[in-house]
Amino acid sequence: MKIIKKRIRTTAHTQLLDVTAAVNDAVKNAGVKSGLAVVWVPHTTAAVTVNENADPDVKSDISREINKIVPWEDGYRHVEGNSAAHLKASLFGAAETLLIEDGRLALGTWQDVYFAEFDGPRTREIWIKIFPDDPA
Amino acid sequence: MKIIKKRIRTTAHTQLLDVTAAVNDAVKNAGVKSGLAVVWVPHTTAAVTVNENADPDVKSDISREINKIVPWEDGYRHVEGNSAAHLKASLFGAAETLLIEDGRLALGTWQDVYFAEFDGPRTREIWIKIFPDDPA
Amino acid sequence: MKIIKKRIRTTAHTQLLDVTAAVNDAVKNAGVKSGLAVVWVPHTTAAVTVNENADPDVKSDISREINKIVPWEDGYRHVEGNSAAHLKASLFGAAETLLIEDGRLALGTWQDVYFAEFDGPRTREIWIKIFPDDPA
Repeated sequence: MKIIKKRIRTTAHTQLLDVTAAVNDAVKNAGVKSGLAVVWVPHTTAAVTVNENADPDVKSDISREINKIVPWEDGYRHVEGNSAAHLKASLFGAAETLLIEDGRLALGTWQDVYFAEFDGPRTREIWIKIFPDDPA
Repeated sequence: MKIIKKRIRTTAHTQLLDVTAAVNDAVKNAGVKSGLAVVWVPHTTAAVTVNENADPDVKSDISREINKIVPWEDGYRHVEGNSAAHLKASLFGAAETLLIEDGRLALGTWQDVYFAEFDGPRTREIWIKIFPDDPA
Repeated sequence: MKIIKKRIRTTAHTQLLDVTAAVNDAVKNAGVKSGLAVVWVPHTTAAVTVNENADPDVKSDISREINKIVPWEDGYRHVEGNSAAHLKASLFGAAETLLIEDGRLALGTWQDVYFAEFDGPRTREIWIKIFPDDPA
């Protein structure tokens, strides 16, 4: 199945943007009942992660704390000045391998899938590739 | 192949619990000789990781150091008070994609698969989904 | 398809070594047009990551900053003295799930795949397993 590319728009410098519905739409449109969905972030200053979907304070705490741990200014040599975002991208990861069951993502009760923006706001993409398997 | 759900019990606040045997049992029971096993952690304050299986000091060093890097108290706003565990879950990751060859996980000599507890002790689950392929 | 094992040689204590061409060679030799390539690092003091392929300062900034965040000396108990490398391996991750389309890795414009050495220089391996799917 071909890669499905979706454009998204982040609105802050650091942001966890919920993309669960976009991925579930791709799964549903593909008509896949069981399998894998790999979400790929084709950028090097952003990532994909899974975290809590209930209290929005979790998102802001994660954003604030990772920015304390990986400071924006720290004598980096990279001329674009966004080396901190590059490191955060590697720590969170460019890909998430998600399970599909009963025609939708199999997530824990409190889990959603987030695009993790570390150098926004920007227009970004997520790539989704779906692998059906035999549910038997 | 349907998701296999296994219940586990963690016994400390931060803990790396070896789940290699549990995943290998699932692979063996499925009768799969070659393929992928995705281990999914359906929680947002725990993760899955791969690390050393020999000296137990590695596990305790990893636990202690990640707790220094992401301090438990740091002015977080999330009312449950476990935002540090949420960030650690995103840094370690909710999924591990493991290779299967010759009917078992293909791991390096020193590698085992660990459930990474960051807000225990709790009763937890791991979900395992196996994708057979043609070994030829 | 069987796991393809490639030997690599790192030349520094901390190093991001580009392995994109090695993985693309494996994909090409397998004759796979569409699917997944899982890159597995069978070591516990190294990892695989995806990051910028243009300015080499990004690689050195990432290496320097992760070594500041996870200091080499910090009262660790592990007798080999490389616990920092073990933690960095878990933070970056042992596996990367890459997409294949049109007979090669589907990467963003600025993305390459890197072997992340945290306790070199050493002779290392990467394992590559390719899963073809139907591109239709």
